[in-house]
Amino acid sequence: MEPIHLGLIGCGTVGTGVVRILYSKRQLLADRIGIPLNLKYVADLDTTSDRGVTFPPGVMINDAWKVIRDPQVDVVIEMIGGEGMALELIEAAIEKGKHVVTANKALLARHGNRLLEMAVANGVDLVFEASVGGCMPIIKTLRESLVGNRVKSMIGILNGTCNYILSRITDEGIEFQQALAQAQAAGYAEADPELDIEGLDAAHKLAIITALAYGTPIDFDNIYTEGISRITALDIQFAAQFGYRIKLLAISKDNGDTIEARVHPTMIPFDNILSNVNGTLNAITVTGDAVGDILLYGHGAGMMPTASAVIADIVDIARNLAARASGRLPLLACQPDKIRPKPIMPISRLVTHYYFRFEAKDQPGVLSRIAGILGKYGISISSVHQKGRKSEGSVPVVMVTHFARESDVRQAMDAISGLDVIHGRPVVIRIENDNHLE
Amino acid sequence: MEPIHLGLIGCGTVGTGVVRILYSKRQLLADRIGIPLNLKYVADLDTTSDRGVTFPPGVMINDAWKVIRDPQVDVVIEMIGGEGMALELIEAAIEKGKHVVTANKALLARHGNRLLEMAVANGVDLVFEASVGGCMPIIKTLRESLVGNRVKSMIGILNGTCNYILSRITDEGIEFQQALAQAQAAGYAEADPELDIEGLDAAHKLAIITALAYGTPIDFDNIYTEGISRITALDIQFAAQFGYRIKLLAISKDNGDTIEARVHPTMIPFDNILSNVNGTLNAITVTGDAVGDILLYGHGAGMMPTASAVIADIVDIARNLAARASGRLPLLACQPDKIRPKPIMPISRLVTHYYFRFEAKDQPGVLSRIAGILGKYGISISSVHQKGRKSEGSVPVVMVTHFARESDVRQAMDAISGLDVIHGRPVVIRIENDNHLE
Repeated sequence: MEPIHLGLIGCGTVGTGVVRILYSKRQLLADRIGIPLNLKYVADLDTTSDRGVTFPPGVMINDAWKVIRDPQVDVVIEMIGGEGMALELIEAAIEKGKHVVTANKALLARHGNRLLEMAVANGVDLVFEASVGGCMPIIKTLRESLVGNRVKSMIGILNGTCNYILSRITDEGIEFQQALAQAQAAGYAEADPELDIEGLDAAHKLAIITALAYGTPIDFDNIYTEGISRITALDIQFAAQFGYRIKLLAISKDNGDTIEARVHPTMIPFDNILSNVNGTLNAITVTGDAVGDILLYGHGAGMMPTASAVIADIVDIARNLAARASGRLPLLACQPDKIRPKPIMPISRLVTHYYFRFEAKDQPGVLSRIAGILGKYGISISSVHQKGRKSEGSVPVVMVTHFARESDVRQAMDAISGLDVIHGRPVVIRIENDNHLE
Repeated sequence: MEPIHLGLIGCGTVGTGVVRILYSKRQLLADRIGIPLNLKYVADLDTTSDRGVTFPPGVMINDAWKVIRDPQVDVVIEMIGGEGMALELIEAAIEKGKHVVTANKALLARHGNRLLEMAVANGVDLVFEASVGGCMPIIKTLRESLVGNRVKSMIGILNGTCNYILSRITDEGIEFQQALAQAQAAGYAEADPELDIEGLDAAHKLAIITALAYGTPIDFDNIYTEGISRITALDIQFAAQFGYRIKLLAISKDNGDTIEARVHPTMIPFDNILSNVNGTLNAITVTGDAVGDILLYGHGAGMMPTASAVIADIVDIARNLAARASGRLPLLACQPDKIRPKPIMPISRLVTHYYFRFEAKDQPGVLSRIAGILGKYGISISSVHQKGRKSEGSVPVVMVTHFARESDVRQAMDAISGLDVIHGRPVVIRIENDNHLE
């Protein structure tokens, strides 16, 4: 039987994991698919590093375009990352009628709509399970398992680097910079960690699953994104006193006319299962109108977990090829002509609970002045802690609110910042009290 | 476009949920599939009860065989349960070239191999996502998402009735019979609860996913099954003192030449995430050689969660029909001619940790006589509690062992039962110390 010919472009960490599975499980995969897979090319500028596998002659090449040009290649596996060359290669592959597997969330978040349209027009599959949540099958679950549901919300820990850093700060009482350095030393954070710690990576992922969950085009630009670099050990300790842990959450909710889609540090109660997802692990809770809550939990990154998801995509395409059923699954949630834009709600309209920390002069009347401004903006306090005198002459005043509106909170914070008894900007952390799976 | 014609047989709780989704989400499902679904028949002996939907004329019928005989019906949805008529109907549907969706785990556990062979021979799909774990997509995850993995183990809470009862005993300190009565009053247990509480339902499910995970025929008869009816509040309290909770676990491991597959009450450490899966919720941890550990968690039963899984199966078949790709997925883990029997290891060869409770006369030397017998059988104690005098003249002696072999444990228990200082049979509960996702 004629095998399915694969061309992998970009043999870094995940690409190497994919190659290892393809070689070490050649027979197992053929048994599961019914047709053998042939890894015809592995293209990388570095053709000499030891990747723990022995390539047959002619497989390892340094010219990615050779993969695109070869008419025998059925499936292109894009493992370069980034937007420049990866975008050009994927476009060219689709135009040549090749199916594409990618884990490139940044690319999909910014160019996904156009690429998916191109794929439909050219009758090819463009699949991306590994782009979100590593080994957790969130794409397949949304697109297939929950097909009978209207998704109401998704709340996920989708960035292992941030989760590791926040876990270290929580467990060790260290500060952000030290925890970041530990993450870098452990290989869990890049030398340039901005994409992770500023929440952009999680927002890329949220853009993709939000489109899938609600049948709307991918919209990255309107996702509110706030990273973890200003989270302090002090706020984590105060959070614990209120019964909360701080996690970087990707949150998406269907509000009817609009969608909430936001990434920011969030306080969640101890008995929310996500509060116990620690280290580099990822997890996501999906709430559907039929299914109730389901949770997926696992390794969101790393060579082999991510490679496992890429292999699942390759096999999905191979099974389609074997059954002559390419295009069997709509690439987003529903048939392309049924995708309807649903706007993302501006963050200013968010209504949620908030945690505030003010650094106040230790003198009478401060609390009443803060409370007065909050009251003026309709922000009602549910709990307040005022700590004893600190050496620097300021004391932290921390409080948790009832439901309040983001725009009111911002105005109130501006006003409170202007008080002569307040040092610096207040700390504002949103709270998510919805408790799933309890 | 010609719709896909469905015939549903058995309109009880889950069947009604399926009907409700098919009616209320007709357009949504058509948008997601690309072809409309037409529910041509709903067959049930009870044609008059209010199911919260209005059937068009001719849909509700009392003759299940009419569904089978109608050549226009593409897909039969078997929601009767049990083995008698359900088996006959499924066989007849397959012979007529109809695709079949079922949630009937008892049927699959006992007749699945033959039915799957029949389906392959007749070129139809026989799918059963809802048979295991309700809304958790464990079948799809094993068959598709983890296709690049060799599964090493699966540990699951797969019966919500037992989990509810054990949660009640744990939280309230009540005894089994009282907790069972509460489960029955809450609608979580049948009037005849044996299938659930004796572990058979969980064993049916374990048989199905074990076959899928390891590419072996379904083998229900050799799964060791022990229920929860002898679990006492006392043992749950002692377990907590050792740092454990008691759960009814379905455990399956690939040991190389053989497979472990067993269902029994099991002590697991507090920091095992499964120990916090309470009430009627289900969860399963799957360990794969590439993916590491992943956890699925959600509602394992109930009208709408189970119906959601049935709808996912219907849509899978519909998408295959739309793409003329029936048979695209092998019905077990791999192509039928690659299924290889892998025997289930007899429970006597199990090696694990154990918890024992002996009711002993409160007199000197008892512990040394127990320990002497354990030592004779090579069973080494890691921890022991001996409690103060009880009014009935016996005191509980509880202990936890290092790794020991089941056959040795059984012989030792026989010998200890025969001691004149021991009342009744010792309590033996297996312990699972492997900690996943930590």
